[in-house]
Amino acid sequence: MQVQYIFEVLGTVFFAISGALAANKKSTPDWFGVTFIGFITAVGGGSLRDILLGSYPIVWVKDVLFIYAILCGTILASIFYTTLHKLRKTLFLFDTLGIALFTIVGTEKALSLGAGPETAAIMGMFSAVMGGVLRDILTQEVPIIFHKEIYATACLAGATMYLLLHYFHIDRNINFLLSGSLIVIIRILAVRYNLSLPKFRKDSVNTVA
Amino acid sequence: MQVQYIFEVLGTVFFAISGALAANKKSTPDWFGVTFIGFITAVGGGSLRDILLGSYPIVWVKDVLFIYAILCGTILASIFYTTLHKLRKTLFLFDTLGIALFTIVGTEKALSLGAGPETAAIMGMFSAVMGGVLRDILTQEVPIIFHKEIYATACLAGATMYLLLHYFHIDRNINFLLSGSLIVIIRILAVRYNLSLPKFRKDSVNTVA
Amino acid sequence: MQVQYIFEVLGTVFFAISGALAANKKSTPDWFGVTFIGFITAVGGGSLRDILLGSYPIVWVKDVLFIYAILCGTILASIFYTTLHKLRKTLFLFDTLGIALFTIVGTEKALSLGAGPETAAIMGMFSAVMGGVLRDILTQEVPIIFHKEIYATACLAGATMYLLLHYFHIDRNINFLLSGSLIVIIRILAVRYNLSLPKFRKDSVNTVA
Repeated sequence: MQVQYIFEVLGTVFFAISGALAANKKSTPDWFGVTFIGFITAVGGGSLRDILLGSYPIVWVKDVLFIYAILCGTILASIFYTTLHKLRKTLFLFDTLGIALFTIVGTEKALSLGAGPETAAIMGMFSAVMGGVLRDILTQEVPIIFHKEIYATACLAGATMYLLLHYFHIDRNINFLLSGSLIVIIRILAVRYNLSLPKFRKDSVNTVA
Repeated sequence: MQVQYIFEVLGTVFFAISGALAANKKSTPDWFGVTFIGFITAVGGGSLRDILLGSYPIVWVKDVLFIYAILCGTILASIFYTTLHKLRKTLFLFDTLGIALFTIVGTEKALSLGAGPETAAIMGMFSAVMGGVLRDILTQEVPIIFHKEIYATACLAGATMYLLLHYFHIDRNINFLLSGSLIVIIRILAVRYNLSLPKFRKDSVNTVA
Repeated sequence: MQVQYIFEVLGTVFFAISGALAANKKSTPDWFGVTFIGFITAVGGGSLRDILLGSYPIVWVKDVLFIYAILCGTILASIFYTTLHKLRKTLFLFDTLGIALFTIVGTEKALSLGAGPETAAIMGMFSAVMGGVLRDILTQEVPIIFHKEIYATACLAGATMYLLLHYFHIDRNINFLLSGSLIVIIRILAVRYNLSLPKFRKDSVNTVA
């Protein structure tokens, strides 16, 4: 449990960094704007999950450490701004570790609150990606989940694996590790080989005005 | 009750279809993106209503059938894509039946949770239109409720009629039918005769920069 | 308490007016669209605060007076449309009084529900600014909190002062007045002298593609 908590806080820092850097792309927002977007990116997914499940108090409302983790991420993003933009691969890895972790934590939480497996998988995926969706809405970008490479689907795959192994009573820590790794591996392969899901309709742009 | 439940599930399928087709208009999203937008369109309004009323568990979180109804709608949208786009009138009818049904169900639910009539009417309208509003925000379109023909106002009219007849102790099933029909009729007349509410200010575009 | 309630209702009217006028800038929405945007502007921040805190029932869901306050604000915005646009300073004052009031009310409410000081300050700020953020998302504008002059930061400053004075057991009414005034003063100075927070990165537009 202690280890998972540390991971959650670290995941929050990573998401806040990625949010702060994304906020800074489009315009030149001030410190408040960047921190705000880092905040929404980091806590948006988990807050939505808790609200949909009616699970109160919401994590960051109760535990002030998450608020400081976000401030910490924003300050790190400012200090190491140039370095971080050179380390695109490092950043990608942070984001990938973040969504892997948040997916499994979210799936687990939904299960523990009595949700069925389908709902739990959706809640896991929401925990991981909805912060980024809210960030994209606020900064008027196309939401990340509609981007080219496999993203949210990797989270659903990892959540599904977790649920299967859970069903077969695999040890929880091993399950956590295996399912999280699946998300990381799918995501790395997707970006390296530019993998995407099949289009809904190949001809859709031409067919519909 | 059984009949209403069937209608709710059918309404969810219809909204998922309309969401999937709308998602596909703008770009060429993949299967995940289309299903995601169908999902938000179908459950967004009801989820917001339940969250605002503090009514837990939220319908689709508890009842997995709604999740499968959405998947079903997305698959139907894919298979019958060309046909559905030719059957614009059928689609319009589906959407109209969907909002009529969701309005009355939402109004009823709010009333049963002790909301006053004004709040109940707003909750009914939210149930019907907010899924479409969220869809439009995600796909960066002008929200449907700001479109030309009368839309959300038809829902408010139906909800008001339901509340009036409820006040006069009209039988619930008859009331459901009459109020739902009012929404369908207003909506059909609005589209056929291109009816819209009066503008807030005729000269607003010129007056304000 | 009576006085605060009157202020809250007045604040709601002011926010509805500012929402209705903002809605009208971009296009020529009909009466429903304008009222809807006034509604979201007025109740969005407080609703989000209550949802995040799990504090039910949400204020306007319980107390129908807030719904009529919004209708009232929209009608006033229509009748005095030309006058209000000439009285930009008056409008600015209304908005400033609104955010000052909502910030302190929100901070107080979060505290009374057991939130820590950091969370309470965030909740106060959310109460004041998130209605405007939702309005801007709906009307596809750049969210107000990313605008030039200090806005949300003034709310955070006022909330922080309230929490400090609260900690030192200053009389609640005096605290309310002093902290609210701080927000008003910061905001007036920010607009008059065009004050903004430091940019996150001066060179960000050039550095990042």
